Amino acid sequence: MTRLLYGKEIADTRMPALTAGVASLRASGVIPCLATVRVGDRADDVAYERTIARAAERVGIDLRRTNLPSVAGRRDLLDRIGSLNADPSVHGVLMFRPLPSRADEAAICAALDPRKDVDGVTPVSMSALYAGRLGDRGAAPVGFAPCTAEAVLAILRHFGIAPAGKRAVVIGRSAVIGKPVSLLLLSEDATVTICHSKTVGLAGIAASADILIVAAGLASDGRDGGVDRSYFNAGQTVIDVGIHADADGTLYGDVNADEAMDRVADLTPVPGGVGAVTTLILLEHVLSASIGARRDGDPPRGGSDAGAR
Amino acid sequence: MTRLLYGKEIADTRMPALTAGVASLRASGVIPCLATVRVGDRADDVAYERTIARAAERVGIDLRRTNLPSVAGRRDLLDRIGSLNADPSVHGVLMFRPLPSRADEAAICAALDPRKDVDGVTPVSMSALYAGRLGDRGAAPVGFAPCTAEAVLAILRHFGIAPAGKRAVVIGRSAVIGKPVSLLLLSEDATVTICHSKTVGLAGIAASADILIVAAGLASDGRDGGVDRSYFNAGQTVIDVGIHADADGTLYGDVNADEAMDRVADLTPVPGGVGAVTTLILLEHVLSASIGARRDGDPPRGGSDAGAR
Repeated sequence: MTRLLYGKEIADTRMPALTAGVASLRASGVIPCLATVRVGDRADDVAYERTIARAAERVGIDLRRTNLPSVAGRRDLLDRIGSLNADPSVHGVLMFRPLPSRADEAAICAALDPRKDVDGVTPVSMSALYAGRLGDRGAAPVGFAPCTAEAVLAILRHFGIAPAGKRAVVIGRSAVIGKPVSLLLLSEDATVTICHSKTVGLAGIAASADILIVAAGLASDGRDGGVDRSYFNAGQTVIDVGIHADADGTLYGDVNADEAMDRVADLTPVPGGVGAVTTLILLEHVLSASIGARRDGDPPRGGSDAGAR
Repeated sequence: MTRLLYGKEIADTRMPALTAGVASLRASGVIPCLATVRVGDRADDVAYERTIARAAERVGIDLRRTNLPSVAGRRDLLDRIGSLNADPSVHGVLMFRPLPSRADEAAICAALDPRKDVDGVTPVSMSALYAGRLGDRGAAPVGFAPCTAEAVLAILRHFGIAPAGKRAVVIGRSAVIGKPVSLLLLSEDATVTICHSKTVGLAGIAASADILIVAAGLASDGRDGGVDRSYFNAGQTVIDVGIHADADGTLYGDVNADEAMDRVADLTPVPGGVGAVTTLILLEHVLSASIGARRDGDPPRGGSDAGAR
């Protein structure tokens, strides 16, 4: 019997504390506020924005949406980030990515005030994650982990799956999910193998994992492709970060769920797995950034690298 | 027959171009200059400083040494970094680490101008390495990879060992060597496994590697400990980053070289392996930073995060 790891359980468990935290902050005069920046109208961005809006409203976080035309350039985005940095009523900023230009994306992400970087895109957040200093909220701002990567760890923790000493295999090496989830697993003492499109013998390596994280977009050709029985072992926890839509709108992940069922120990469903936790984490980051802003008591400053360039 | 991968070969091959580059810059009126900052008098720092001094003199790079007393605090170091940032005649800064306080070390590293960060310690360098943007020397400064990690990759390249599609196992997860070498191997399309003190079944995992990088300080109890035959396979390339000294001053690595000989395909000797390349890479970074400073034509600015804190 494969146990399904429902992300909703975690959202249900943690939502009350989040809501209470937001309410207490509002009572003290601070209204936690997330700003989203979307370029163009990609369907998955629009869908994620809608999910965020519903959840933010439920917990009492203000949402300020910006939608730039798909022709928006580097200057437009830097201007927008600059004004959100300067606006003390905005505590967190989420940019839907990828942005139109990958070259610009690095510079634009670097321009964001790390204290508002609730999805871990700034150099400050990345280097804190890399150096294992994310928990170290001392004098200097350290940013946040990317929400999806943190959601994977939250699921493992909630369902009592300790990474320490386990073999974790991560399929995918993107800066958005593959690399950060690898570093988070490493900081929790897993032995981590990072696989990708150039990996030889991928299925065999995956099958050696105690914890298999799939974030590769492998199943883009439909449900029959993707991660099949050759990737699994009977004791395995499989976390599926992929999300795709059929022509008829049915959602499915990178993992062939039919093949995984009854072949692995644990599996996150799609939908209802990682995605259900990502939005919770995002809003928790906004609350944390709002508390940080009140504690600091000074107006947010510009992004660390923005001014000098 | 195990092939010994002598780092000196690489130094000999690349030193002429480095020397010529420095000479050409000096002829144009720019004198490449490296500043070192040492706190206290730890033997290995003093030894590394001496090696750097000899090599810098050989290629024509100026060396400016600072030696702070071992009681030097955060403020002393920040002041020192601040003046080196502000000094246009200094192109690169190397701090001997670890600094006395790990908490201070992050803030002090962040204070360094990323354009002078020749050993990859700033958030800008770390995040560029993490995001795979180190080669992308466009408009914004991206820093450098840590020298030792880059030395490992230089050895593989020089001896024709392509990481792409290979299984690389890295023993050690420090921010100085384990993590950066893992990311560099990943960016060259290796499938990378990161192991550490909490890894279960370490020797077996190591023995599955095509390329084994050992940077763990495992042999600190002497030559008989460390990485022995159980870690090897016959086709393997073994890169030994460890360096230790016997009571009588004899140097040895993390790998038990007697056991590795004739059991693996390739092995870096200690001394004369990775260490011999690290100093070359450092001085190449200084040249590159000097060229960057001349090209930019503007005075170096303060570290990205220093000013605002």
